[in-house]
Amino acid sequence: MNKVKWGIVGPGIIAHEFAHDFAFARYGELYAVASRSQERANQFAQKYDIPKAYGSYQELYNDPEVEAIYVATPHTFHFENSRDALQAGKAVLCEKPLVVHPKECRKLIEIATQTGNYLVEGMWTYFLPAIKRAQQWVAEDRIGKILHIKADFGYPIPFKPEGRMYNPDLAGGAMHDLGVYTIAAAWLFYQQDPLQMTIVSRNASTGVEDDVTMLFEYENAAASLCTSFRCKLHNYLYIIGERGYIEVPDFWRARESFLYEMETPVEHYIDDRKGFGFEHEIDAVSRDIATDQLESSVVPLATSLKVQEHLHRVLSYKRQPTTPLQQTN
Amino acid sequence: MNKVKWGIVGPGIIAHEFAHDFAFARYGELYAVASRSQERANQFAQKYDIPKAYGSYQELYNDPEVEAIYVATPHTFHFENSRDALQAGKAVLCEKPLVVHPKECRKLIEIATQTGNYLVEGMWTYFLPAIKRAQQWVAEDRIGKILHIKADFGYPIPFKPEGRMYNPDLAGGAMHDLGVYTIAAAWLFYQQDPLQMTIVSRNASTGVEDDVTMLFEYENAAASLCTSFRCKLHNYLYIIGERGYIEVPDFWRARESFLYEMETPVEHYIDDRKGFGFEHEIDAVSRDIATDQLESSVVPLATSLKVQEHLHRVLSYKRQPTTPLQQTN
Repeated sequence: MNKVKWGIVGPGIIAHEFAHDFAFARYGELYAVASRSQERANQFAQKYDIPKAYGSYQELYNDPEVEAIYVATPHTFHFENSRDALQAGKAVLCEKPLVVHPKECRKLIEIATQTGNYLVEGMWTYFLPAIKRAQQWVAEDRIGKILHIKADFGYPIPFKPEGRMYNPDLAGGAMHDLGVYTIAAAWLFYQQDPLQMTIVSRNASTGVEDDVTMLFEYENAAASLCTSFRCKLHNYLYIIGERGYIEVPDFWRARESFLYEMETPVEHYIDDRKGFGFEHEIDAVSRDIATDQLESSVVPLATSLKVQEHLHRVLSYKRQPTTPLQQTN
Repeated sequence: MNKVKWGIVGPGIIAHEFAHDFAFARYGELYAVASRSQERANQFAQKYDIPKAYGSYQELYNDPEVEAIYVATPHTFHFENSRDALQAGKAVLCEKPLVVHPKECRKLIEIATQTGNYLVEGMWTYFLPAIKRAQQWVAEDRIGKILHIKADFGYPIPFKPEGRMYNPDLAGGAMHDLGVYTIAAAWLFYQQDPLQMTIVSRNASTGVEDDVTMLFEYENAAASLCTSFRCKLHNYLYIIGERGYIEVPDFWRARESFLYEMETPVEHYIDDRKGFGFEHEIDAVSRDIATDQLESSVVPLATSLKVQEHLHRVLSYKRQPTTPLQQTN
C-alpha cells in the first residue's frame, strides 16, 4: 500500500514524539504540520523534514493531499479541531483524552458518522504490543477469571498555576492527563461499567484535582486506580485472575509484560520498538485509513465514550453524606 | 543476660516456624510445649529438642520455670489462652490477630494491666529489620510527607468449609489471616484512624469474606489495601511520599526494602536473617521480659487495639444506600 499522508495540528511536546516515530512507521508518512504561528510550523517542519508547514489549521484541513490529521493541541481544543478536520473530509487521530466531557464525545462521534470520516482517540497504550500480549494472555484464559485490576500513574508535576496541567480553563488536573490511562486500562481488561465508584480526591489551589485514589466495584471484580501530580507512584498495571496475574511496568508506555503463576514469572514479553512507541499507533491507524475503515478496532469510539463517562463520573463524584465512624464497643 | 525460657501453646504450623527460629535467637530458649494431646506435644518436643512436653495448657502455665508463653492456637482461642497464661503470671506473646473483636482486646489489655504481666501481639512483621529500615527512612524524612500507602496480601487458599480458614466459627476469612497485615502496615506508617473506609468484599459459601478491597481515606492521605483467598496478589507494600517512595516486597515477611527517588532505587536494604524471621520477634520480646518491660515498644497494646478496631470496621462495613450512577447527559 501507499503510505498514508499525515498532517499534524499543534506542534507541542507530544507532537514531537509522534513526528519522531514516523521514522519507524511502515504505513504512514508525515506530510504537513500546522500551527497558529507560521514560524513554529516552519521550525517543526524543518526538524522532521516535513514538506508542508501551515500557519493556520484551516490551511492544513484544506490541503487535498492530506489524508489523516493528528490533533495534538491542548485538551480543550480537541473537540473543535477534530470537528473541523472531520468536516473538511479528513480522517482524524485525536490525542487522548479525545474530549473533556461525554457530551462533546457523543457530538464528535455524531459528526464522524454524518461526515463518513474515520475518527479515533490517540489512546496509544492500546496499540502497544506489550499490552496486546497481555490481552492475548487474558483471552487464552491464562490467568482465569479477572478479580482485580490495579493501575497507578503519578508523577510530580511542578505547580504552575497558569500552565496547562494546573489550569482549570484548559481542562487541567491529574485525571485528564494521567488518570485517563488508568481508567482506560481498567476498561480494556474488564469491559464493564463499575456498579459503584468511590473516590478520594485532593485539589491544587487552582481547583483542579492533583491526587486521586479510585475504587471501582464491578459485579465480580474490583479496580484500584490512582493518579497524582503530587508524587511519583509505582506506575504499574496488574491484571489479577484466579489462576495467575499479569504485570505491566510503566503500562501507559508499556514496553514489556510479565505473566505470573504465583511468585513465578512464566512468560515475559518485551517489544522491539525503535521509537517512543507511537509507530504502532501510526501504523494501525494508517492501515485502517488505507483500507477504508470508519473506526479503529483497537480503540473503538464506544470505548472512548466509556472512558469519557467514567472520567466524568470520577470528576463529579460526591461522597454520600455519612455518619461518623461508629465506636466499636 | 540469661536466656528467657519460653513455652509454646498449640503446636500447629506457625508454632513449627517459631520453634525452628530459636536456633537463631540470642535472648530466648525454648523450654516447653503444650498441646491438648500429650502425643502431639511429645512429637513436637522431640523435633525441636524441647525439655518439657505437656498434655494440657494448664500444666504449662503452672510450670514455674516458664517465663514467656507463645500462644499459637487458632484465633478464637487466643483470648482464653492469653488470659489464662497472664493470670498464671506469665508474659504472653500471642500470635496475630491478638483476638477477634475489639471488646476482647480491651478486656485482655485490662487483664494484663491488672495482673502486671507483659502482653504483646505477634505482629512479627513489625519486628523485621527491613520494616524497621523503612520506618527509619520515613523518620529521616527521606520520602517527605506520606500521601499513599498500598499493601496487598493474597494467596489462593483451597476451599475446605470445615477447615480453619473458611470456618466462621473459627474466625476464618481473609481479613483475620492475611488482611490484618495490610491494616497493620497502614497503621504502622500512617498512625491515624481513617476518616472514611470503603470496602468491596466477597464471601465464600461458608459466609466468611474471601476477597476484600479497601480504600481508607485520611486527612491528607489514602490507603489502598487488598486481601484475598481467591487469588495471588502482588504482595508488596508501598509507602509513597511527596519526594520518593519505599517498596517492600512480600512485606508481611519482609526481607528487603527499597528506597526510590522517581524511577531510581537509591537505597536497598536486605537483612541477614537465618531463620524464617521469627528470631527478631523472639529476641525483642525476650529482652523486654528480661528487663521487666510491661509492653513492647514495637507492637504497643494501643496499636493492637487500633488494628482490631480497623479490622472490625472493615468486617462490619455496610455500604450507604446509594442512588444509581447518574447518566452523564
